[in-house]
Amino acid sequence: MNTLFNNQAKVYKEKNKNRGRLLIKCPDQPGIVAHISKFLFQHQANIIESSQYSTDHEGGNFFMRIEFECPELPQKFGQMKESFINVAQDFEMEWKLQQNSELKRTAIFVSKQLHCLREILLEWQNGDMMMEIPLVISNHLEAKEIVESLGIPFYHIPASKENREEVETKQLQLLEEYNIDVVILARYMQILTSRFVSAQANKIINIHHSFLPAFVGAKPYDRAYARGVKIIGATSHYVTNDLDEGPIIEQDISRVDHRDEVEDLKRKGASIERSVLARAVKWHLEDRVIVYGNKTVVF
Amino acid sequence: MNTLFNNQAKVYKEKNKNRGRLLIKCPDQPGIVAHISKFLFQHQANIIESSQYSTDHEGGNFFMRIEFECPELPQKFGQMKESFINVAQDFEMEWKLQQNSELKRTAIFVSKQLHCLREILLEWQNGDMMMEIPLVISNHLEAKEIVESLGIPFYHIPASKENREEVETKQLQLLEEYNIDVVILARYMQILTSRFVSAQANKIINIHHSFLPAFVGAKPYDRAYARGVKIIGATSHYVTNDLDEGPIIEQDISRVDHRDEVEDLKRKGASIERSVLARAVKWHLEDRVIVYGNKTVVF
Amino acid sequence: MNTLFNNQAKVYKEKNKNRGRLLIKCPDQPGIVAHISKFLFQHQANIIESSQYSTDHEGGNFFMRIEFECPELPQKFGQMKESFINVAQDFEMEWKLQQNSELKRTAIFVSKQLHCLREILLEWQNGDMMMEIPLVISNHLEAKEIVESLGIPFYHIPASKENREEVETKQLQLLEEYNIDVVILARYMQILTSRFVSAQANKIINIHHSFLPAFVGAKPYDRAYARGVKIIGATSHYVTNDLDEGPIIEQDISRVDHRDEVEDLKRKGASIERSVLARAVKWHLEDRVIVYGNKTVVF
Amino acid sequence: MNTLFNNQAKVYKEKNKNRGRLLIKCPDQPGIVAHISKFLFQHQANIIESSQYSTDHEGGNFFMRIEFECPELPQKFGQMKESFINVAQDFEMEWKLQQNSELKRTAIFVSKQLHCLREILLEWQNGDMMMEIPLVISNHLEAKEIVESLGIPFYHIPASKENREEVETKQLQLLEEYNIDVVILARYMQILTSRFVSAQANKIINIHHSFLPAFVGAKPYDRAYARGVKIIGATSHYVTNDLDEGPIIEQDISRVDHRDEVEDLKRKGASIERSVLARAVKWHLEDRVIVYGNKTVVF
Repeated sequence: MNTLFNNQAKVYKEKNKNRGRLLIKCPDQPGIVAHISKFLFQHQANIIESSQYSTDHEGGNFFMRIEFECPELPQKFGQMKESFINVAQDFEMEWKLQQNSELKRTAIFVSKQLHCLREILLEWQNGDMMMEIPLVISNHLEAKEIVESLGIPFYHIPASKENREEVETKQLQLLEEYNIDVVILARYMQILTSRFVSAQANKIINIHHSFLPAFVGAKPYDRAYARGVKIIGATSHYVTNDLDEGPIIEQDISRVDHRDEVEDLKRKGASIERSVLARAVKWHLEDRVIVYGNKTVVF
Repeated sequence: MNTLFNNQAKVYKEKNKNRGRLLIKCPDQPGIVAHISKFLFQHQANIIESSQYSTDHEGGNFFMRIEFECPELPQKFGQMKESFINVAQDFEMEWKLQQNSELKRTAIFVSKQLHCLREILLEWQNGDMMMEIPLVISNHLEAKEIVESLGIPFYHIPASKENREEVETKQLQLLEEYNIDVVILARYMQILTSRFVSAQANKIINIHHSFLPAFVGAKPYDRAYARGVKIIGATSHYVTNDLDEGPIIEQDISRVDHRDEVEDLKRKGASIERSVLARAVKWHLEDRVIVYGNKTVVF
Repeated sequence: MNTLFNNQAKVYKEKNKNRGRLLIKCPDQPGIVAHISKFLFQHQANIIESSQYSTDHEGGNFFMRIEFECPELPQKFGQMKESFINVAQDFEMEWKLQQNSELKRTAIFVSKQLHCLREILLEWQNGDMMMEIPLVISNHLEAKEIVESLGIPFYHIPASKENREEVETKQLQLLEEYNIDVVILARYMQILTSRFVSAQANKIINIHHSFLPAFVGAKPYDRAYARGVKIIGATSHYVTNDLDEGPIIEQDISRVDHRDEVEDLKRKGASIERSVLARAVKWHLEDRVIVYGNKTVVF
Repeated sequence: MNTLFNNQAKVYKEKNKNRGRLLIKCPDQPGIVAHISKFLFQHQANIIESSQYSTDHEGGNFFMRIEFECPELPQKFGQMKESFINVAQDFEMEWKLQQNSELKRTAIFVSKQLHCLREILLEWQNGDMMMEIPLVISNHLEAKEIVESLGIPFYHIPASKENREEVETKQLQLLEEYNIDVVILARYMQILTSRFVSAQANKIINIHHSFLPAFVGAKPYDRAYARGVKIIGATSHYVTNDLDEGPIIEQDISRVDHRDEVEDLKRKGASIERSVLARAVKWHLEDRVIVYGNKTVVF
């Protein structure tokens, strides 16, 4: 049982009990902001943070994220949601109204390499990554000890090309059973089928160990070494049916030089993978990422 | 005569003829955004970019910058300004409504070292720094040739501790005569009196060749070398009466190591100074910087 | 018992059994490199990596670090050391000849905040920080669980201004008893006396949570917030008797903006502190850092 | 006539009159460093800076760059070169012995976009890029004014797919006539034939406006925009017969976000292109780059 995280979560929830978030995506037209801010004003919600973006091409979309503070939010929340439906219909909005205090439920998938898993658990224990982790799933046993030592259920589901369908059926059952909102692929070295991906659209976050679109696919560090690049990178993205082609959430890089062998690239890369994945997950948890087409808006 | 810049400016003005910017600073209270967005909506102004920030301490201030597009803005602008006065009064706003096509008028002050001046002129010629440069003032002659070759009047006003008052009187006359909005100190190595500074509050942008508040004052590279730092920096800030203590607009850094002598620090530092000052100036020109207390909000 | 680290260490030691390092510091004069490379050649040592630096001021010092591979190094090592004494005397060298396979013995000091400790333990378990950790010392109990879960002895020694001498006596006894080479202050929030520091010259590595020399002393993030800086930083340095004035090993920074409250600076800063301390410790473990005056050469 | 550069060059040459550089590439074997340092010692050359690297794979190559100071170098230089032939033969070296005071002769090729040309001329005027620029060649007229204002001959050679051979014949004649050592493609938007490239192996430095190997070929910013990357980059490399596949000298990146349109990527990218090309050129001018296979060692 992780008392450390539980204490942090209690503090967080108390501090955020009256905080909420509104996310919006709709065709751009005059008057959107005026209507939304009027709506919030009428519900005594004070805007804490507000970001918006509109494309003046590709059909003209409007995106917005508002974080607000509102006295007695838990009591009012149901009714707010209800009454926003009218605003939303007028502007053909896709939208989401969320209480900050409701933590997302996350399943972490991992294989043999543990650096990304460890980073996430470290941030989580520090109270810097606010989410529930009801379970960890792995096709190997390396992570079992550390996961169970934190009181998190660990499921060992060996996977290969042959049993992929059967494995995914088990995994999907677990995701449903544990009521999971987000899947984090923390260097889970298995390709997912389109059945699995479609069931979790924009809910699976992967870390790819290269600076996409350079080195799509297997062994990116070996190929970076062969090409003689002076900078390596990592990319966190939502998983789609096209391998390493999903909407990019975050990327970062590290300098390397002629002295770095493939092993050095892997070691330096591991450090970038850790932090890029952690940032992408945090932004997702705080509902800062909106997907449109094959891109993301990160507020 | 600089035909290159003139061509770029023509394109820019045509493209921005219907674009405007609204800047606001006021005590925070519910309803501000609702009223502003209603105001813009009523004037057929479509919001292109909007940023806001509120402090929930230090008295609770609200800051906002909106960029909008509005059909026939030049014809409507006077009336818009007029009618915003009411909104502004209700919320005790400090505010500014600006047409993008009106370029700020800038005076550059420089001494012997020309790298910052050259960077600004380079960005300006490329059309990446939209401003008028009616004059350059220097206490030395090094910059004369390059400035005049671009058709910009160059004023040589030798300065020293002894004649400071007289020099500043001349400078202030020139600023008035040329109707100057912004003064850029592009490594102008003279201290300004409080008379000069007060006359141009939040209008003088300086570049200091260190990572403030480290190495306030003279010879920062020599002192950075003596301390054995592994990173050097530069800071662009508004000038106040306290030396190197004004509101910081932008900072950046560069790695150095034990092999770097003072001369190397100066050379590497010059490259950071150039880009930090250029960014700060651009943000100021686009009305992205709001000063509050001794800090800046950069939208 | 940490089986994970033990396995990594076994692989490392086997791979490095014939590898050694030579570090040198002496007055600069012609012929040094010629003599050293002749010495290595005579002992069948092949140079793998070599770095050198000479100052042409401050008396003219010469610094060198060579990593070499040498068949049957363990058998030859004693005799090599013996025969290097002559070369060293001719050039008045301070020097160190080291087998890579001999791991340094490290004591970690920590208080309530665990992010730096966790980072070090994470890197250590991954096999990316090759050292023994015979003990952890803390003036609080927060770290006890994680430390003991890895099979590392944990010593709880409450400390305050009043009992400083007594506390340090205990600590020094432990350092001697466990035969410690390096002390890592992983956010250990106590000031050490000059007695303690002098006993461990250039062996205590601290992480300071600011970009030195900015914000020397207490509460750097609060002061950075008050100053309105746009970049925060962290500095790892050897501890000397002057608070936060010791030779800097490594620094790094992170961008912040007007939206970041003190709490945000602390959170972002924690991430830099972690990586800066980890890099500094690694370089020290690999004998890449040579102190001269109040500076470091990092090879 | 560029008096500014001429003054800087005079100072540089005087300061470097006794400085030289030795570059070496050979099969790795014991004793190389011992022989080279003995050679330098015998010629009273004091080592100022020394870097070496050896690959323990791909055949085992050894690379070295030494910068040295030697009394009366100009008088001794011919004889030093002569007597190094013996050392070189024993170890099958490719080598180069160079006096720092001999400046390389550079031809800049440019098309319509001038930011890279301007950066180079700015660094050159500041005395931070030590080279002669006997001529600039362009297929357009945009650069004519600025080039000629600095007293540099400007050759306008319109180029298209149709007249490529004829154009390159003229260019090659000019390179020969002006005795050119290095060709800088400062955004020269024409593909060179293998005849041209082969005649200047490892002497043509290009800047590609993407983070290679991502976005090889045309319109990289448009493709980066379409892919929704969060970081863009630029790459400087030697030109080979495979488009954008030559040995990489330097790369750098810049963060972008969802608000950046293609035009913004181009503007931000221009700033990286400038600095990446400038660094690559400087390193080449100082003989810091050694090509092996399709990679570079940068000392």
